[in-house]
Amino acid sequence: MEDLDLVIANGTVATASDVFRADVGIRDGRIAALGRGLPAREVIDASGKYVLPGAVDVHTHLDMPLGQGLCSSDDFATGSVAAACGGTTTIVDYAIQEKGRDLHSALQTWHDKARGRSAVDYSFHMTICDPSDAALDQMAEVVAAGVTSFKLLFAYKGAAMVDDAQFFRVMRRASELGALVNVHCENGHVIDELVRERIAAGHTAPIDHVRSRPPRAEAEATARAIALAEMAGAPVYIVHLTCAEALQEVRRGRERGVRVLAETCPQYLLLSEDLCDTPDFSGAKFVLSPPLRARENQAVLWCALESGELDVVGTDHCPWFYRGQKERGLHDFRAIPNGLPGIETRLPLLFSEGFAHGRLSLPRLVAVCSTNPARIFGLYPLKGAIAPGSDADLVVVDPEARVTLRHERLHQNVDYTPYEGLDLHGYPVLTLRRGEVIVRDGQFVGRRGAGEFLRRERFAAEWGTNTETQRPQR
Amino acid sequence: MEDLDLVIANGTVATASDVFRADVGIRDGRIAALGRGLPAREVIDASGKYVLPGAVDVHTHLDMPLGQGLCSSDDFATGSVAAACGGTTTIVDYAIQEKGRDLHSALQTWHDKARGRSAVDYSFHMTICDPSDAALDQMAEVVAAGVTSFKLLFAYKGAAMVDDAQFFRVMRRASELGALVNVHCENGHVIDELVRERIAAGHTAPIDHVRSRPPRAEAEATARAIALAEMAGAPVYIVHLTCAEALQEVRRGRERGVRVLAETCPQYLLLSEDLCDTPDFSGAKFVLSPPLRARENQAVLWCALESGELDVVGTDHCPWFYRGQKERGLHDFRAIPNGLPGIETRLPLLFSEGFAHGRLSLPRLVAVCSTNPARIFGLYPLKGAIAPGSDADLVVVDPEARVTLRHERLHQNVDYTPYEGLDLHGYPVLTLRRGEVIVRDGQFVGRRGAGEFLRRERFAAEWGTNTETQRPQR
Amino acid sequence: MEDLDLVIANGTVATASDVFRADVGIRDGRIAALGRGLPAREVIDASGKYVLPGAVDVHTHLDMPLGQGLCSSDDFATGSVAAACGGTTTIVDYAIQEKGRDLHSALQTWHDKARGRSAVDYSFHMTICDPSDAALDQMAEVVAAGVTSFKLLFAYKGAAMVDDAQFFRVMRRASELGALVNVHCENGHVIDELVRERIAAGHTAPIDHVRSRPPRAEAEATARAIALAEMAGAPVYIVHLTCAEALQEVRRGRERGVRVLAETCPQYLLLSEDLCDTPDFSGAKFVLSPPLRARENQAVLWCALESGELDVVGTDHCPWFYRGQKERGLHDFRAIPNGLPGIETRLPLLFSEGFAHGRLSLPRLVAVCSTNPARIFGLYPLKGAIAPGSDADLVVVDPEARVTLRHERLHQNVDYTPYEGLDLHGYPVLTLRRGEVIVRDGQFVGRRGAGEFLRRERFAAEWGTNTETQRPQR
Amino acid sequence: MEDLDLVIANGTVATASDVFRADVGIRDGRIAALGRGLPAREVIDASGKYVLPGAVDVHTHLDMPLGQGLCSSDDFATGSVAAACGGTTTIVDYAIQEKGRDLHSALQTWHDKARGRSAVDYSFHMTICDPSDAALDQMAEVVAAGVTSFKLLFAYKGAAMVDDAQFFRVMRRASELGALVNVHCENGHVIDELVRERIAAGHTAPIDHVRSRPPRAEAEATARAIALAEMAGAPVYIVHLTCAEALQEVRRGRERGVRVLAETCPQYLLLSEDLCDTPDFSGAKFVLSPPLRARENQAVLWCALESGELDVVGTDHCPWFYRGQKERGLHDFRAIPNGLPGIETRLPLLFSEGFAHGRLSLPRLVAVCSTNPARIFGLYPLKGAIAPGSDADLVVVDPEARVTLRHERLHQNVDYTPYEGLDLHGYPVLTLRRGEVIVRDGQFVGRRGAGEFLRRERFAAEWGTNTETQRPQR
Repeated sequence: MEDLDLVIANGTVATASDVFRADVGIRDGRIAALGRGLPAREVIDASGKYVLPGAVDVHTHLDMPLGQGLCSSDDFATGSVAAACGGTTTIVDYAIQEKGRDLHSALQTWHDKARGRSAVDYSFHMTICDPSDAALDQMAEVVAAGVTSFKLLFAYKGAAMVDDAQFFRVMRRASELGALVNVHCENGHVIDELVRERIAAGHTAPIDHVRSRPPRAEAEATARAIALAEMAGAPVYIVHLTCAEALQEVRRGRERGVRVLAETCPQYLLLSEDLCDTPDFSGAKFVLSPPLRARENQAVLWCALESGELDVVGTDHCPWFYRGQKERGLHDFRAIPNGLPGIETRLPLLFSEGFAHGRLSLPRLVAVCSTNPARIFGLYPLKGAIAPGSDADLVVVDPEARVTLRHERLHQNVDYTPYEGLDLHGYPVLTLRRGEVIVRDGQFVGRRGAGEFLRRERFAAEWGTNTETQRPQR
Repeated sequence: MEDLDLVIANGTVATASDVFRADVGIRDGRIAALGRGLPAREVIDASGKYVLPGAVDVHTHLDMPLGQGLCSSDDFATGSVAAACGGTTTIVDYAIQEKGRDLHSALQTWHDKARGRSAVDYSFHMTICDPSDAALDQMAEVVAAGVTSFKLLFAYKGAAMVDDAQFFRVMRRASELGALVNVHCENGHVIDELVRERIAAGHTAPIDHVRSRPPRAEAEATARAIALAEMAGAPVYIVHLTCAEALQEVRRGRERGVRVLAETCPQYLLLSEDLCDTPDFSGAKFVLSPPLRARENQAVLWCALESGELDVVGTDHCPWFYRGQKERGLHDFRAIPNGLPGIETRLPLLFSEGFAHGRLSLPRLVAVCSTNPARIFGLYPLKGAIAPGSDADLVVVDPEARVTLRHERLHQNVDYTPYEGLDLHGYPVLTLRRGEVIVRDGQFVGRRGAGEFLRRERFAAEWGTNTETQRPQR
Repeated sequence: MEDLDLVIANGTVATASDVFRADVGIRDGRIAALGRGLPAREVIDASGKYVLPGAVDVHTHLDMPLGQGLCSSDDFATGSVAAACGGTTTIVDYAIQEKGRDLHSALQTWHDKARGRSAVDYSFHMTICDPSDAALDQMAEVVAAGVTSFKLLFAYKGAAMVDDAQFFRVMRRASELGALVNVHCENGHVIDELVRERIAAGHTAPIDHVRSRPPRAEAEATARAIALAEMAGAPVYIVHLTCAEALQEVRRGRERGVRVLAETCPQYLLLSEDLCDTPDFSGAKFVLSPPLRARENQAVLWCALESGELDVVGTDHCPWFYRGQKERGLHDFRAIPNGLPGIETRLPLLFSEGFAHGRLSLPRLVAVCSTNPARIFGLYPLKGAIAPGSDADLVVVDPEARVTLRHERLHQNVDYTPYEGLDLHGYPVLTLRRGEVIVRDGQFVGRRGAGEFLRRERFAAEWGTNTETQRPQR
Repeated sequence: MEDLDLVIANGTVATASDVFRADVGIRDGRIAALGRGLPAREVIDASGKYVLPGAVDVHTHLDMPLGQGLCSSDDFATGSVAAACGGTTTIVDYAIQEKGRDLHSALQTWHDKARGRSAVDYSFHMTICDPSDAALDQMAEVVAAGVTSFKLLFAYKGAAMVDDAQFFRVMRRASELGALVNVHCENGHVIDELVRERIAAGHTAPIDHVRSRPPRAEAEATARAIALAEMAGAPVYIVHLTCAEALQEVRRGRERGVRVLAETCPQYLLLSEDLCDTPDFSGAKFVLSPPLRARENQAVLWCALESGELDVVGTDHCPWFYRGQKERGLHDFRAIPNGLPGIETRLPLLFSEGFAHGRLSLPRLVAVCSTNPARIFGLYPLKGAIAPGSDADLVVVDPEARVTLRHERLHQNVDYTPYEGLDLHGYPVLTLRRGEVIVRDGQFVGRRGAGEFLRRERFAAEWGTNTETQRPQR
């Protein structure tokens, strides 16, 4: 065996199935060996710590324009550093087609946003807002360019919302191309009516955002997406599932044999709708879509994560400054930019609130934060695994660390965190991207802009049968 | 890194989550390293082959007395060699309490059956047929002796069948002791009536065995076991689940938050009840309990295996010679000894019919045949993993091998195989137990009797949280 | 048209489907005509009032021995007068086989209890406690004698409880005979264990009765009864269903095509378990089995009544004096005689809390209190209908009456009512049995002992197809 | 009692709950009395026959324009005579708003079509194709004019199809007005895509109509309609439910407490999709939307009718001549006019295939054909009841009649019947509308055009509570 460049020694390694004590040996940016007493030029001791695959965040919105000059407050430079500080080494951001524009220009725009700026490796999904015949044609080239997933929205009427015919057509086309369709499930038609009624009645506060987006509006759209997938003979990936009602639809779809994949987010696991119901406007900090839900959904979602009914935890990171940005909706909740920051806190929250509090086993934590997202989105086994040949993307977590979340200590470019004051048990202390230490003790020490674009593989419906051939290319 | 004793080189390693190309380095009977180009005193080339954790069979009946001088036809010597030839390196057999006898003597009897005779490592469950107060007391010592699971039966009225009060009491006690209750789910009361009616009507053929044990009798008992577990606040493990109706009960229990684990067997995935319906008596070869089911259940079970709804594939290996043993029931199906041989064919069948035919991913195959049974029954990570520190129990499968199943080529001590003539894609070519090659190219080459008894850990409800402390002791 | 003996004029008549203004003409104890301006020798004006079919109570326990010299406090004389005062004109009481005794003697005993004492017409079910071969034989004669329904209990271990084989055997036999099996659904095995544990822990108060009989113990037994009925190919009637969990099992059974009929009682619609949780012993007044449940079940049961998911409201009238009888359990809830009084209050409660409060339509009220029980138990169309040819059993309800329930005003032979102080909207003001006014303005004015025994028809699975032939005989 | 004009003597009367032998006395077109031996000026003997309330058909399309000069082949004159001959005495036809036109003109048009032409009493629903603000306003006047139900379609994209926002808005408005929304549940978006794909692939035959409208497309739309009703807090009436999948959605909605009413049609109970799959074009005779389904749905629908899960049987009578009309689609199934004749055969089919074959009790037959539709659509108790005060709309059925269905013997203005050659047990022999005999022995003997328009009452969510006030006005 040739010499190793670096060994992370004596830690407890966790994969999506196994937990074992081993050194992790790295050479040329890849994992070269697992063993004990591995010799190396450089050794970092991880005694008493967990060594996990670098986390993969497949739901981010960096540098996302919202119109009227608004852009989500983290760009690829700041957002990727925050991600790295939270143990995330790969992100998949949503490139967004503008209405009336083609897919290529959207892809180009996102490449321009990210190129040379991201501290972690990155890829894109493509959100289709205008599924014209031309756009359907272009999907082939987009897939060939390594962007193998498309998002459609049943919400945001008049903007990104598609109708069922468009949804079906994109699904058929994606299925042909081996691409996976992601879907934002809320019935935008009904929500639009409820919003209109609510505004007409003079109800304009942050909590009215919540009240105009009931769980049934999400469950209905979830059921519909699954029914359409069933009729299209295609798989479907549900983004940011929030509630028991929607989960029930996922279960029913699977019982019928539909290939449904589902993602939730830390905010739905840990926060509830009453946070929006404040006497002042501060509830706006918690406004996103789908909205936070009643507290009893949280236990349901945690159980579904552990049992395997939910496949992925993404962040839906879409930060807006409370001052100046969220405040635009001071007199009308419709003007509050939707979204919460979270790219940095996902893994710490799941480790502490999930694993340390006994709600989530360590293999399931790795599965939902790293292995599953990598696998579903064609990045596996380059990403998402601690195994010989995989990229040496690693995060070392100290289970003894005690951290109180404060937005000042975080690296996200925003003026608050939804988890302010939360005490965490355990925190990442070291992040490596392709064998390079990029975060040490909460400080970014890597090269900014060294993150590379990842061309992703097509979706493998039977992923186990051909993982060897699924290696993504750079 | 110290010298390795043996390296299995260049194979494709599969775990319950990952598939990667790596050498597996072995020292002192344990896995010492995973990497590429590992140096060793001895190297076995596995190019083009899969290297899996040795399979763990948690449902066997070796040397099982049935009364009237009958004993299942494989003992620990013959059965364990057959297991090894099929890639199984650990078995957990059911020690059976006799009515009116204590648990200790049952355990002693099984130790006597196995000691010095098994070619693979082994442990026991304890079947409780007579849950007296004394037996409930003894459970503590049985658990302390490393037998941390107990089986109860809702079938076989007048023999092993317990009532719901006994079931509940054992569950409470097991829960206290950190032991897991396994349950055979069929309503023995109703079956007894149906058998009586059928015999009275002159229906005595093998197919009448099937007809007197309807799927609802299994589903009812499954629902009941789960409801009792729910009221006892205890987990429950369903052995040999056969049909969609019973699976539906498992789903419902989990939706209520009950911790239900479920096992199926290859015979229910691949065979159907019409095999019992022959003009001659040969259908008796396929008589077991619960019986084979209608064909449409097979796809349901395969899907549930892949999706994670079923956790384990055991064999329920309980072989009887057709000549002389099965034939006892020639004129009365009640006299047919129940059970099928299968200890040798589980992994080959799942590899070929599951993985090679695209029904099962390789990680799921490993999970259900090896990692999950090891984990659920307190053998993990000693068994069930390919990771540094784990026992070097490995099976190398050649995906290019083409084998037609014939009972003459198998090592089970019985005069038929239920899969006679089935063409398999892929077959195990090498089995190692604790670093020692015991099977090579279908020949047992190990030391007979070298298998060791495994004291199993207690059941870990949240297994992920403390796997480090779960190491079983010898 | 010949002369009418009596006309109830100008009322609003309600049947299980229709509500219309009409005179009801009576001749020879039967309904002879419906119309307007019917001439008669005698006319009672019912302007502004509702005229309903006399209520049929198919679940009473009059003069029921409990052992140790205890008998339920109403006998057929007092109980039947109370029934009549509450608008009930037919009762079906449970004759109970003693262990080791035959069915005939039980029937004889109950005939002796009732003959010449009941103010309303009556019949019996037969509770089988000891389903010996002899008892199974005798079932034919019991059915021939007009007792066409049998009750089995899954509760009261060591007393009335049967096992699943006995249950199945009785179902098969009943099915053969065209009789209907009623079942008390609670898992007596588990309850026995929970009671034992609770007593052992020193928990002896009335509320501990509730806590040792969880809803799942009822739902499990309900599911089991339905599964057994399914396998027996027989219909099944669930007595006193109390909770959402059990209702869900009824729904599932019906979706599978099982013929399930279900009854609830006013106490489960209107009272909740917290009534048992009193600082003093008075909670014992509310102790029965199955016990009262959490409040949220009430809305579920009301909806199920209105929608048709529940078929019958019975009373399970089984009264015990608080002083001297309930008090036997002062130091041990096991000694509290189980049961509540209610034979008099069913119709008033359903009229006020159901119809007047908008939870129940009038046709559904008639259906569940009168038409359905008559039909299911072979008394229709003699009873349960306002139609030419039916017995002139009528109750006239004044919707303007305002009555506060006080046990002093009721006629039940017991020292309390569970509904003390409840304000009712509407109350029965007139009851006729076979054309004879027996209650007027809350006073019994009929002949005591004039009630007749009703030989009931066999259960008609497809009742609509042959109602003409279903006329019961006296 | 004043003199009766007519008595239908000695028949067996059936209502939605009761079956009894009685004379029905008629005076001034209304039912005046039920009794035995009623004296009258005229007596018709109905010995051995059933006397049912005249059937109410709430789903017809008479004189319905389809564009391109096509009109459904029965107008109010021919269709109403056919209805009467089949025992139907009231019809509620769908008036249809044209796109860009207002509701008033649609109503006017339908009044013009019907006035003075209908042989039976009639009313209208209003189909809204263009739910503009103006149309929403006009709904109030439409309701005030006695048209208290509106239909919306999720199918027929580009024509009648509404989106979810429009649906929700109409539901809110209807709910305000006490009107009921009827909905055609098929996902027009998906169907449009499937049709496009199928035509593109050269599949143009009648069976391709079926294949482009899968059950899931109906179930999805059913689920969506119910979810929208849930969010709108409104009841919803599902027209022409065809399959198990959609029924399951109805069940789920009801379990959540949504007020869902559901209708099926005889064609879905008795015919199956293979009828469209003929070598020649004759399958076009069976083309309608939703299409016929796989045979196994039929038993599911019959059970749901009997159990009460389905509330109504309508006909969706929409006849087209095979020659000249259906044939327009000879080379392209899209050009086949959708619809089947059935206004005349509903009651005969349900009597024979339902009641006589033991699938449906007589009270349920009356409920689904007469009482329920009358009640749900505000015609009760004028229609749908045999009770004093109700219109004397009656149909006398001879259970001994044996009729082989032949289109020549029917009165529908069309050149085929889908039930050609079917042998019926029992047939209507007499129909009365408001006391007047209009059909005798299969011959229409009434006055054409004597049918009157019925102003219907608002939908009563709790119908039982105020049936007295629900009397519709002429």
